[in-house]
Amino acid sequence: MNKKKKYSQNQNEIDNLRGQAFSTRRVTVKRVEQILYKTFKVLDKGFVRVIDYMGDDSSIVQAARVSYGKGTKKINQDKSLINYLLSHRHSTPFEMNEIKLHIKLPIFVARQWIRHRTANVNEYSARYSILDREFYLPSLKNFQQQSEINNQGRGKKVEIDEAKEKLNLIKTNSNTNFDIYSCLLNQDETGNIIDNEKKGIARELARMTLPLNTYTQWYWKIDLHNLMHFLSLRFDPHAQYEIRVYADIILKVLKKWVPLTYNAFLKFRMNGFSLSSEGVEFLKSIIKNKKFDKSRLSKREINDIIKRFNL
Amino acid sequence: MNKKKKYSQNQNEIDNLRGQAFSTRRVTVKRVEQILYKTFKVLDKGFVRVIDYMGDDSSIVQAARVSYGKGTKKINQDKSLINYLLSHRHSTPFEMNEIKLHIKLPIFVARQWIRHRTANVNEYSARYSILDREFYLPSLKNFQQQSEINNQGRGKKVEIDEAKEKLNLIKTNSNTNFDIYSCLLNQDETGNIIDNEKKGIARELARMTLPLNTYTQWYWKIDLHNLMHFLSLRFDPHAQYEIRVYADIILKVLKKWVPLTYNAFLKFRMNGFSLSSEGVEFLKSIIKNKKFDKSRLSKREINDIIKRFNL
Amino acid sequence: MNKKKKYSQNQNEIDNLRGQAFSTRRVTVKRVEQILYKTFKVLDKGFVRVIDYMGDDSSIVQAARVSYGKGTKKINQDKSLINYLLSHRHSTPFEMNEIKLHIKLPIFVARQWIRHRTANVNEYSARYSILDREFYLPSLKNFQQQSEINNQGRGKKVEIDEAKEKLNLIKTNSNTNFDIYSCLLNQDETGNIIDNEKKGIARELARMTLPLNTYTQWYWKIDLHNLMHFLSLRFDPHAQYEIRVYADIILKVLKKWVPLTYNAFLKFRMNGFSLSSEGVEFLKSIIKNKKFDKSRLSKREINDIIKRFNL
Amino acid sequence: MNKKKKYSQNQNEIDNLRGQAFSTRRVTVKRVEQILYKTFKVLDKGFVRVIDYMGDDSSIVQAARVSYGKGTKKINQDKSLINYLLSHRHSTPFEMNEIKLHIKLPIFVARQWIRHRTANVNEYSARYSILDREFYLPSLKNFQQQSEINNQGRGKKVEIDEAKEKLNLIKTNSNTNFDIYSCLLNQDETGNIIDNEKKGIARELARMTLPLNTYTQWYWKIDLHNLMHFLSLRFDPHAQYEIRVYADIILKVLKKWVPLTYNAFLKFRMNGFSLSSEGVEFLKSIIKNKKFDKSRLSKREINDIIKRFNL
Repeated sequence: MNKKKKYSQNQNEIDNLRGQAFSTRRVTVKRVEQILYKTFKVLDKGFVRVIDYMGDDSSIVQAARVSYGKGTKKINQDKSLINYLLSHRHSTPFEMNEIKLHIKLPIFVARQWIRHRTANVNEYSARYSILDREFYLPSLKNFQQQSEINNQGRGKKVEIDEAKEKLNLIKTNSNTNFDIYSCLLNQDETGNIIDNEKKGIARELARMTLPLNTYTQWYWKIDLHNLMHFLSLRFDPHAQYEIRVYADIILKVLKKWVPLTYNAFLKFRMNGFSLSSEGVEFLKSIIKNKKFDKSRLSKREINDIIKRFNL
Repeated sequence: MNKKKKYSQNQNEIDNLRGQAFSTRRVTVKRVEQILYKTFKVLDKGFVRVIDYMGDDSSIVQAARVSYGKGTKKINQDKSLINYLLSHRHSTPFEMNEIKLHIKLPIFVARQWIRHRTANVNEYSARYSILDREFYLPSLKNFQQQSEINNQGRGKKVEIDEAKEKLNLIKTNSNTNFDIYSCLLNQDETGNIIDNEKKGIARELARMTLPLNTYTQWYWKIDLHNLMHFLSLRFDPHAQYEIRVYADIILKVLKKWVPLTYNAFLKFRMNGFSLSSEGVEFLKSIIKNKKFDKSRLSKREINDIIKRFNL
Repeated sequence: MNKKKKYSQNQNEIDNLRGQAFSTRRVTVKRVEQILYKTFKVLDKGFVRVIDYMGDDSSIVQAARVSYGKGTKKINQDKSLINYLLSHRHSTPFEMNEIKLHIKLPIFVARQWIRHRTANVNEYSARYSILDREFYLPSLKNFQQQSEINNQGRGKKVEIDEAKEKLNLIKTNSNTNFDIYSCLLNQDETGNIIDNEKKGIARELARMTLPLNTYTQWYWKIDLHNLMHFLSLRFDPHAQYEIRVYADIILKVLKKWVPLTYNAFLKFRMNGFSLSSEGVEFLKSIIKNKKFDKSRLSKREINDIIKRFNL
Repeated sequence: MNKKKKYSQNQNEIDNLRGQAFSTRRVTVKRVEQILYKTFKVLDKGFVRVIDYMGDDSSIVQAARVSYGKGTKKINQDKSLINYLLSHRHSTPFEMNEIKLHIKLPIFVARQWIRHRTANVNEYSARYSILDREFYLPSLKNFQQQSEINNQGRGKKVEIDEAKEKLNLIKTNSNTNFDIYSCLLNQDETGNIIDNEKKGIARELARMTLPLNTYTQWYWKIDLHNLMHFLSLRFDPHAQYEIRVYADIILKVLKKWVPLTYNAFLKFRMNGFSLSSEGVEFLKSIIKNKKFDKSRLSKREINDIIKRFNL
């Protein structure tokens, strides 16, 4: 009930924010205004919310035009200019847009995420506050074995029975850890003292027993150039599923916010293909029907090329 | 006339931008909306214009509260929280606000400015476009001698006659340089060919004859934390006059944008005072009326303390 | 035994590295060479090792002199130049030195540490590799209650009996978590399959049950300017004990590496004192024996001043 | 003579530095030691000198192995690991190496160069010191017209007569500017007062008459990952010739310093090729002998593909 109340207060706060309307001279994006402050669910208890944004597609063009000055009358259509900028790695105009998100995510995901250093972050602090009893529990279909070909990935699903057993283990582990956390604090989740004879230890110490699937949350602000870099690494099939689902939601936000940039990003980055100098020679040998010593390429690159070009 | 026309077009554009009004759910600051896109003159031909902003004082508090979570009911007033954050170097909440400026400035000022690396910049490119015949000419009262005590500063004014002579030299120099620039390009300011027998050289080459007082312009975006760092260094009396006048204008924008942060910034940073460990001992010796071996401090620090504490 | 073997191999590796001697024309610091690759223990199982360094005190001076060129004959002693640079926030010459450390630390400490974004990091990945059964267990004297005055700190020690009970809880929690981790992987610490009927789940998933006191390790490279910023925040009495002990070791390394900079850093930063504009007025009122309305200062600042100046 | 003396002093300093030999346990690269402190000439009066370095190819591998821990026995050859890291954008291990250069370059080149923000810089300051009478004068073969197809590039050479005329203009312009600079300072290059009746103005003001082809110098330190990013942009055929020649020298230093990384860099970056999603479809249509609507690609991409694949 306490919990429920807290949530409904938050919901009220969000409703209030969503109800407000100000007049502004700033560049404004209607499709983002419509989703502002809204909670997009991710994983079992996580979320992404857009809190604020600066700029739209036209802001990128405007920034680029300062650079080009009078010399650019020819590249005068926004779409082709954005395509040009993105495909030629002119990154600074994209840095002129910013987005601020409120994100709730498991700590092990947060640890990967934070490695993107060119962002601003304010995280909920377990030194100041008691954390909630909230843990990420994978859904049964996400219980997968270690990949046999990829040292850092997942492979086949495990049998349903084993998945259930594993899920149960994680659930029990999480709850036991939280009980011990409460016991160390000598305080339960709602702040009530557990044992009047005892003092409990400081929050900054007690938190050490919490597991890496504990949920945390933060405000995260990043410019559009660095956001695309984040997305290109984290929406990648090699990224861990649990961070990819966040990238997926953010990619949808990107589409609403800067549709021209989104299209260019898909075309030149996400769905583009990079060849090494040897990869180019390999493709040339196929086009010209000539021999090619495949040992010049790594197996990985050969396979990637064969797959992508349906050879 | 061409020039005039160009200017009035620009003015029209600005008027259009200032005329627009959108509805937004984003945090909005009325006093900044009032000056949005407006041109604030700096030096003889430079300017500062606010193009966009993200957040206000409450956004800083909000970001900090994510960090503090449930543990912070005591620090619940925005003003004292902002004072606390700023005086205790909690910089991340201030990074949650951004401002985007359009600035016109002489190249030698731009060269100092760009050393602040944590900002985003798009500069007018003299590879793409022909620059305008616009040069910074100091006003007569700014003609000062090399400081006798400060290796990098200015001292006494020079006599009015010498000032006039010097100003004239700079003026002539600037115009001659621009004439040579045009001659290298074989094109005048409006793009007309000068000599049909000649070809002219590329813009990227011709620009090398322009002097450092040529005006350039850029879009510059920075977060509030780094903006205050910039201001604390560039509004400083040791900063060169020609950059300080820009900092002065931006400081006024800061006051409109985030008044609580502005006050904290003046109180703890701009008007605060830092003592070395020996400086503390020196002040203690004065309070306790004890002897103190002044050789423990540099002359500079002694003088600074004596001046600031009216000793 | 397996474990012991692994350790002694590591020790052999370190001995080999410490045994090597190359001839170099680079700036070299004897006192750092003596400790290169050596393991300095921190906490119960953590460590700090210096892996590489670039520059010494003279490199800072040299970089500054490029800036000053011919105009600086007066500031010609290294010590006073370094004092000047540090006290006047000329940070770029200090950025010219780098140090690379190998650090083993609990994950909750790593999470604070990584917030310093201007460093380079390579962390041991629990997606690639199985972690060791190594957890931080505080010593009994470190079991302290939540501070009553500081929302993010520790206060009084808890009674020895409660401390023992709490320590036991943490110990049991850590081992149970690791058992569950092994069970999820279906592999023990040495890589042996636990149950042939089962498949186990991927490492990137299994790790989520590990607690925040699990040890991780990383290579961490940072320039001297940013290192001092890190130390000034993390050697601070308000920093958590478990990160302060790392800062303490690194401070000792700093002293060996750049002794002049170390002294300046202590004098102007670590042992210096910053006053707000009102703090200055308060001290002036004491020196001049005048009245002062203390409500102009926060209680915190008044207390800090009274304490530091023995008022 | 004065000039000559200054130069020979510098040469003595360099000889002294090159004569020294210290014993170190640090990773050392013989081929870089051989060129340490040596002056590599660039353009007419510029240079690049390697002042210090940290790490070699093995340091990258070592940092990556910390990440991979026990799980990486298969990727155990340095060369293939470096190829893997570079082609899969694992940038952090490359950040573990640093190089420090002393560079002398024209100001207009410095203005492009400084846009790479992830480097450390100390530049000779014209506020502190009087600059030398040294200007970049292009060689006759570098006098080229504005490109007709590239808004920011050069095209055909201009006729020798026009080139001579243009060169003469630049030469005269540079010298006149320097004369005016001296006159403003009321001091010549060697520091002698010009007119005893006058005071001259401060250096920070006088410098504004110097042209953008004036030489400046700086110490520049950067990590290997960001250095490669710099080189990929600045060794590019679209980069201005005057910065490309610096990138060319630094590329040669890279080859000596980290030969395995250098090869991977050439293979996957400098000589690699990036296709958009439509570019992939275009190549597939050629391989499969199918129709393709070329309007799906920009002319630029079509041309690039045709050229690279000899279609």
